[in-house]
Amino acid sequence: MTENRGAALETALAYHRAWTSHDFERAMTYIAEDIVCQAPSGRLESAEAFRGFMGPFAQILIRSNLIAAFGNDTTAVLMYDTDTVPVSDAPGAEYLTVKEGKISHMRIIFDRLPFEAARPAAAKG
Amino acid sequence: MTENRGAALETALAYHRAWTSHDFERAMTYIAEDIVCQAPSGRLESAEAFRGFMGPFAQILIRSNLIAAFGNDTTAVLMYDTDTVPVSDAPGAEYLTVKEGKISHMRIIFDRLPFEAARPAAAKG
Repeated sequence: MTENRGAALETALAYHRAWTSHDFERAMTYIAEDIVCQAPSGRLESAEAFRGFMGPFAQILIRSNLIAAFGNDTTAVLMYDTDTVPVSDAPGAEYLTVKEGKISHMRIIFDRLPFEAARPAAAKG
Repeated sequence: MTENRGAALETALAYHRAWTSHDFERAMTYIAEDIVCQAPSGRLESAEAFRGFMGPFAQILIRSNLIAAFGNDTTAVLMYDTDTVPVSDAPGAEYLTVKEGKISHMRIIFDRLPFEAARPAAAKG
């Protein structure tokens, strides 16, 4: 299910392998300082903002497997499944743009509803 | 952002063009009778079950634009943005398997949270 070698796909897969193997600091080496990430909760600008979003998710990850990976030299799409501490079977999809070996843009889609449902009632706003 | 010609990608794009141009019956001609669809709400088996899921969504669609499309002769990935009647800026991603010109498997990811939030309070279970 992995298709079409290309620099962006290679970077996307290296990033994915790093964070799904619990090496988030290595994953961050593939993230551009000025990354723009369009996440379900809104737009994040900068590697630090991205770290604040993906770091906590990487910490609750139990396992992930890649469902699909396509790309070329400039963009790539990954789809993957995850099991996390609060939610099992939580898939995600990412569309990534890579410039000079770093991910400069990411559009990420996942279903927030089961995560919201798993939050302690006292924490719900 | 559309890459790699192939039979599955062509079918995926034809399906996508049909439902996003409000021709849902034409979209259904690309769906296998025994489709298995893994949706955020669970597993759907059969074209009729799929119709019950995607038909109502197609009816509330205002517009869609394709963000990314990759594929080959057997599988494809689409990512797209939509505006719908209850929710604006609602992206989705699909990983599709195509056999004999019909979509036999679809894994679809989208964020149900804004749709849940937009439901009338009386309708929430």
